[in-house]
Amino acid sequence: MLKIAMAQMEVVPGHPDVNTATILRFIEEARAKGADVVIFPEMAVPGYFLGDTWEQSAFLRDCESYGRDIIAASKDITVMFGNVAIDWQKKNNDGRVRKYNAFFIARDGELVQPDNMPYPYTIKTLMPNYREFDDTRHFFSLQKLARELGTTPSKLLSPVTLKIRGQRYRAGCLLCEDGWSDDYEFAPFELLEKEHLDFYVNISASPYTLGKNDKRNRVFGRQAREAGVPLFYVNCIGLQNNGKTVYTFDGSSTAYNEKGDVVRTLPEYEEALTVLPLAEMKDMAAEPESEEKDIAHIYRALHYGIRRFLENIHMKKIVIGISGGIDSAVAAALYAKVVGPENLLLVNMPSVFNSATTKGLSQELANNLGCQYMIIPIQESVDHTIKQLEETPMVNLGTGSETHLKVSSFVAENIQARDRSARVLAGAAAAFGGGFTCNANKAETTVGYSTLYGDQSGFLAALADLWKYQVYALAHYMNDVVYGREVVPQGIIDIVPSAELSSAQNVDEGKGDPIKYPYHDYLFRSFVERWQKATPEDVLEWYKAGTVEKNLGCEEGLVKKYFPTAADFISDLERWWNLFTGMAIAKRIQAPPILAVSRRAYGFDHREAQNGAYYTRRYRELKAELLAK
Amino acid sequence: MLKIAMAQMEVVPGHPDVNTATILRFIEEARAKGADVVIFPEMAVPGYFLGDTWEQSAFLRDCESYGRDIIAASKDITVMFGNVAIDWQKKNNDGRVRKYNAFFIARDGELVQPDNMPYPYTIKTLMPNYREFDDTRHFFSLQKLARELGTTPSKLLSPVTLKIRGQRYRAGCLLCEDGWSDDYEFAPFELLEKEHLDFYVNISASPYTLGKNDKRNRVFGRQAREAGVPLFYVNCIGLQNNGKTVYTFDGSSTAYNEKGDVVRTLPEYEEALTVLPLAEMKDMAAEPESEEKDIAHIYRALHYGIRRFLENIHMKKIVIGISGGIDSAVAAALYAKVVGPENLLLVNMPSVFNSATTKGLSQELANNLGCQYMIIPIQESVDHTIKQLEETPMVNLGTGSETHLKVSSFVAENIQARDRSARVLAGAAAAFGGGFTCNANKAETTVGYSTLYGDQSGFLAALADLWKYQVYALAHYMNDVVYGREVVPQGIIDIVPSAELSSAQNVDEGKGDPIKYPYHDYLFRSFVERWQKATPEDVLEWYKAGTVEKNLGCEEGLVKKYFPTAADFISDLERWWNLFTGMAIAKRIQAPPILAVSRRAYGFDHREAQNGAYYTRRYRELKAELLAK
Repeated sequence: MLKIAMAQMEVVPGHPDVNTATILRFIEEARAKGADVVIFPEMAVPGYFLGDTWEQSAFLRDCESYGRDIIAASKDITVMFGNVAIDWQKKNNDGRVRKYNAFFIARDGELVQPDNMPYPYTIKTLMPNYREFDDTRHFFSLQKLARELGTTPSKLLSPVTLKIRGQRYRAGCLLCEDGWSDDYEFAPFELLEKEHLDFYVNISASPYTLGKNDKRNRVFGRQAREAGVPLFYVNCIGLQNNGKTVYTFDGSSTAYNEKGDVVRTLPEYEEALTVLPLAEMKDMAAEPESEEKDIAHIYRALHYGIRRFLENIHMKKIVIGISGGIDSAVAAALYAKVVGPENLLLVNMPSVFNSATTKGLSQELANNLGCQYMIIPIQESVDHTIKQLEETPMVNLGTGSETHLKVSSFVAENIQARDRSARVLAGAAAAFGGGFTCNANKAETTVGYSTLYGDQSGFLAALADLWKYQVYALAHYMNDVVYGREVVPQGIIDIVPSAELSSAQNVDEGKGDPIKYPYHDYLFRSFVERWQKATPEDVLEWYKAGTVEKNLGCEEGLVKKYFPTAADFISDLERWWNLFTGMAIAKRIQAPPILAVSRRAYGFDHREAQNGAYYTRRYRELKAELLAK
Repeated sequence: MLKIAMAQMEVVPGHPDVNTATILRFIEEARAKGADVVIFPEMAVPGYFLGDTWEQSAFLRDCESYGRDIIAASKDITVMFGNVAIDWQKKNNDGRVRKYNAFFIARDGELVQPDNMPYPYTIKTLMPNYREFDDTRHFFSLQKLARELGTTPSKLLSPVTLKIRGQRYRAGCLLCEDGWSDDYEFAPFELLEKEHLDFYVNISASPYTLGKNDKRNRVFGRQAREAGVPLFYVNCIGLQNNGKTVYTFDGSSTAYNEKGDVVRTLPEYEEALTVLPLAEMKDMAAEPESEEKDIAHIYRALHYGIRRFLENIHMKKIVIGISGGIDSAVAAALYAKVVGPENLLLVNMPSVFNSATTKGLSQELANNLGCQYMIIPIQESVDHTIKQLEETPMVNLGTGSETHLKVSSFVAENIQARDRSARVLAGAAAAFGGGFTCNANKAETTVGYSTLYGDQSGFLAALADLWKYQVYALAHYMNDVVYGREVVPQGIIDIVPSAELSSAQNVDEGKGDPIKYPYHDYLFRSFVERWQKATPEDVLEWYKAGTVEKNLGCEEGLVKKYFPTAADFISDLERWWNLFTGMAIAKRIQAPPILAVSRRAYGFDHREAQNGAYYTRRYRELKAELLAK
């Protein structure tokens, strides 16, 4: 009876040496467990998000060389794995060689030739060049190959015949993406002849984003059921990035039986190998659907992402500027779990504008976490900076004329923010032997409500893909579940969000940020996370129709509560749209890497140009109409 | 006799209202000059580099609406223009609508239907998704359309028949890229039937990079000659960006006659309309090839790029931290030309490590430029920071234990750099009402030889795509040609490059940066600008063969001079490779936007992941072999 092993390994991007060692270890384990077939993820050798490392011929040759080691290790076991494949004879007119995102099958030291392919491997059928993916920049597609050979993709993509212990099996081996792709009409499963198929294999390198796995189970479960054969979906774990955006790969490799039921799911973010007897899968009980809340997934993704990010850059110690507000408190509780309280230093940096309330809450948090704590006031330094700027003459050496700069209260606010981050935290982190964090949330990141080289700085922005309501949910989750005690003080959860950079932001008087999170979280989300991105034109159409809350998904009645008149509503809308498409882009260009959890994170997943705010014709008409009322 | 107008307009990305006003103005001008046809650039209505603004349906509808205005304005004149075209009926499975990068032709208020297209417009034949381009992320290709319709691209891409004053003309209208594309085998000009063609039109939106125009003249001249018909290449001017990388569009629209000669070139970076009588082009004299040096093009690109960037963000005043070194001096001379000396403030920020030499040279530069000058010492602030960090106890509130941080000399170097930029320059710029610049060159940017939130900060990195030798060339060019006098003092050109952050970097003792520019400029260039990117493996192969200088293109003899032994050579190579693929990526993620002039600028054009250094198997073998000798 055929036994199939799914090897959910960690793939370290750009390190074929490490990955090959993992693969060889898992092949041993699979063999020891009596498996006939062992399946590894997509791009298991090189990793997936490598940027233009794909243009280094030496790296490509290295991947081929490690691939040969894996093929050589396939004695008495069929090894399926993803690697880059290179056709060194075919060059682009700029000299780049042709590369494929390829699915290799090896047995007894030889590659198994797919029936109709011109190469001894199968290639990816759908190449995503959407969201965080860039496949078509680097890899040649099945469609183009088919065109070049004067045939069709379905002719090339026949099932593979496996000979195992005297028996023949037909496997539908696919490298295909379950979601977005460069192709609108192309359905890879439809291309594969379904008759006489014994099982499907889909190898994958799929980053975690909220809700992804539910969707995949629907799509793949249906494919297995319709074809009436089991399907093995093997994903990797690990952390990969495209520079600005950092993705966790959750694994969640899944086996579906011929009824389409999920009969085995491998754990999130853990290496694991499982062996399934093909003939018994039909009678296995379907696993119950997960009832975990989103926030549990988010916590797991953030914890794993931070841990692996720190390991990758060999950072063990963390400094967090702690304000007494919710974002830095949640960051502190999260990092304390990753690095341990002994490696965490919280720094409170009061100026004359910081209340006794927030200073007390900061201390309470540090006490709850049992970490290092430090108070470094910034007022003396800020005063010195303002004095230097105002008292030093600007001279025109030609004419000898002297003038002086004047520091406004707005300029002084940003001087405070930069003093905290670029002077104190960066210095403290370097002296402590670690890095300091950026604690910005997604709403702040959307409109650039932060100071460049100030609170927007840090080695990683771990919360920048969470809306404020998710930050609060995470605070509750950590208190209730992760710690099981009140680590984030209730006072921090209750206090009004405020930057405390001027007397206009006095928390004890209930004054704080200009962002009204219960409404703006959802407004901003509509600008960035909807497939058909909302713009002021859409929002005004909704306003006119009285359906703003419904379309945004926020609490009913907020529009009336916050904006008594159309003029108030429009002025608020334009304020934030101008920032979102203006200064906030300039700030995001220089922002730290962002840990992604949503289906649309800033950075590489949300591409943007610094082009300034724009209002459509229709928007201007609607605005005139509404203001005339 | 047919008269054809080429309208080289400025395209403002993301502002169809502005662009349409420009187009309507140029249509009037063309009509007044008796033109029968007027040709506008690719994506003349929306602009080209818009990031995911392409996902805003409201924006797309707006582009259609302005397109209708242009069509309506085509009375008695044939108007050719680029715009986005939307097929609202066709949706991707994620809900995004299908979009084309399209070529519209209008006459007398109607669109001219290309013979075999299913739409009243032609679509782009080659969609670059390489380098800075992202076409396949957003637009549907001719190849996919052909496949969907069960036909071939060449069947769809027939010449367009124009009816003008009772005559019929056949125009080969193309939207095709002259360089890189997602397709290896596809040659758009070959697809067009060449018989009975009266002329070619190629509309374009092509950013300036060094050497581009020479290449295009070879390719397009040959096409015109082979087909025996004139070719009109119309490009836009303007500034477009993908966030991190900023491109100037130089125009340089060109008319080729049937012999393939260049008979008209429109000026770089200027709007212009020219009218050519088709029948007379054959007898026009070929323009002489430009003999301008690269540095003249670079200066023009930088000057235009800075000017338009500042206009776009409404910034009129500039602050530059001036060290007495070459990079900040060249930046100052450049910005003085753009904003005028009265709007330029140079700030010298000495610590105890700064020499009288560099302080004197800074003052001399400010004097030469006639700009504002200010000296703000940083020693007091740096001392205060170190004192605060070292004297404030770190407390564990649970145990009451206290420890102290220690500031090393390396940490103190970075404290100085951040004090200058994030404290002084950012404050001074805000108070002055402007921004401060990042003056990093490409060699420093390659290996992250800069301090994050320190000298790596700024609103724009205008020199970050220039190697150090190009920065020196620019200094000479500005002194000799632009100013015609010694603006950048000879002392600054002669001094050893140094950060002056410690006594180990004493310029008066000839000590300076660890980067040996005559060699490292070229080594680093091989890592990033070659199509087949060099890696340590390639460099060691060259070293073994004695061909390092030849392969890098640097002066012969440098390897022997700088690295007496193989161990020295290898140690240097690994030092910089570790930085290039390590810390420097972390710094580039948070770097300011970079003004591109090379064929491979950092940012969107050079994609990279923070994956750490990697050495191939073959590299390790070569290293062992060389070290064993």
